[in-house]
Amino acid sequence: MEREFILWLSERLPPHPHLRLGIGDDAALLRWTTGRDVVVTTDTITDQVDFRLHEVDPRRIGHKALAVNLSDLAAMAAEPAAAVVSLVLPREGALKLATELYLGMLPLAETYAIAIAGGDTNTWDGPLAISVTALGRTTERGPLTRSGAQVGDALLVTGGLGGSILGRHLSVEPRVREALQLHAAYTLHAGMDISDGLALDASRLAAASGCGVVIDLEAVPISADAGRLAAITGRTPLDHALGDGEDFELLIAVDRQVAEQIVREQPLAVPVTRIGEFVKQAGLWRRERDGTLAPLPATGYQH
Amino acid sequence: MEREFILWLSERLPPHPHLRLGIGDDAALLRWTTGRDVVVTTDTITDQVDFRLHEVDPRRIGHKALAVNLSDLAAMAAEPAAAVVSLVLPREGALKLATELYLGMLPLAETYAIAIAGGDTNTWDGPLAISVTALGRTTERGPLTRSGAQVGDALLVTGGLGGSILGRHLSVEPRVREALQLHAAYTLHAGMDISDGLALDASRLAAASGCGVVIDLEAVPISADAGRLAAITGRTPLDHALGDGEDFELLIAVDRQVAEQIVREQPLAVPVTRIGEFVKQAGLWRRERDGTLAPLPATGYQH
Repeated sequence: MEREFILWLSERLPPHPHLRLGIGDDAALLRWTTGRDVVVTTDTITDQVDFRLHEVDPRRIGHKALAVNLSDLAAMAAEPAAAVVSLVLPREGALKLATELYLGMLPLAETYAIAIAGGDTNTWDGPLAISVTALGRTTERGPLTRSGAQVGDALLVTGGLGGSILGRHLSVEPRVREALQLHAAYTLHAGMDISDGLALDASRLAAASGCGVVIDLEAVPISADAGRLAAITGRTPLDHALGDGEDFELLIAVDRQVAEQIVREQPLAVPVTRIGEFVKQAGLWRRERDGTLAPLPATGYQH
Repeated sequence: MEREFILWLSERLPPHPHLRLGIGDDAALLRWTTGRDVVVTTDTITDQVDFRLHEVDPRRIGHKALAVNLSDLAAMAAEPAAAVVSLVLPREGALKLATELYLGMLPLAETYAIAIAGGDTNTWDGPLAISVTALGRTTERGPLTRSGAQVGDALLVTGGLGGSILGRHLSVEPRVREALQLHAAYTLHAGMDISDGLALDASRLAAASGCGVVIDLEAVPISADAGRLAAITGRTPLDHALGDGEDFELLIAVDRQVAEQIVREQPLAVPVTRIGEFVKQAGLWRRERDGTLAPLPATGYQH
């Protein structure tokens, strides 16, 4: 099965300018750009935890497996370079499933010019697991990390949040271009992607930078999905926007003047919203009407 | 569980000269050496296929998961740089199992100066799967690939073959140093590691180089394990040496004079044996007593 599958795949993988050697040898070979660091991230998605194999088109699962890794490269403001894919497939229908998963990945790989450099394809008596490792290169401006936010910085977010479980979590649009565009045009202090929920991830960004963060609850951009989900769950759309996770939007810390400029210019294809500021007091906060700070629970997906 | 585990792990990961940023951000950052290509490989091992969780010390499983990836770097004569590790753990006892797996990996990472740069730790209702992606850098001599063997070249192999299922497949000693040493001291034409069996892998090496290969059956170095296993299975030790796989020894194609030199000098800590030669006729062959070629079945592990 692996041989047949590798033949099928090798006919569908386009050549890539940096890929000196792709599938077929013991390892892949990538030409590397002088002076650029290697950014590497890995994310595994599994049946019944990150998707339900028997309820969705496997192409969407393949798309998600690669997209969540691209989102991590975006979080570092890195240019995608290559990915390797490990499939662990249920024995029954393994070949068909493998091809469907790749058919979901290949268009995304093409969009972001990332080389599928290799992989490993296994079958077993267990459920489906897909493990992707993505490599990116830092730009001339270096990486965007979590630790650079400064007290007084504004917190920005792309897109709208909440309710991704209604389907958006599968059709993730990684904010690769958006991150590169912001990183090239403005001085960013810190950044990450929202995978576990705005509240939890914002608290992590602040903690990594040695400060706290205040969320301006009225400013949080709430997705239409959060509203639809709230109608089902009886919770508020804001609750969903704060804690649902799998939004894969960018959280960015910038100087407050730069934030004003970005919000005014709206340079991206998705909206950028100012939703808070970094403060000296460690922790996650909301501002009361009288201006004092009150603790905000760091809701989100705890692994 | 993931948080507790990451804390435990971050205390045990030593700093690494090339690792600018390890676990804790969205991705890891590796400083890269100018002019060196990135070698990347991924290998997943799963319960009941590559090991039996309830029959072996999980540290040996962790060791194997990293070692098989290091063996792929060795096959390319690349210097190990970094690895990322994705664990998919059965829910019950996940934390304990994760730490044991890492305790098996960490000494090996130290031995080969490979940075554990990051990972992803998941739990689910399925069995254990461990996916490792390893990054290496090519040396000044460039990579060793499968495609450079020439008609007339000799085929060399390190160590002894067969019977790894008796335990050696878990305590893999990747031939990283051996590959680098040979690659630095001699002109190698092609190479790979034996993962699926000498016969099958030698036929792959020849096919990738556009030629055939004759195995000198009397010269094949047979491990003591192959003898022990033959006593159980009733097959011959040679059969086991040809087809068992998971030897993780090196197969190397070199000019025949260089082969003589290597075999005479025995520069490695493990024996190097000349076991055949590359020929014009595609396929895998053995030589009859009268000097004619007869087809040799490409036995081995078919995925």
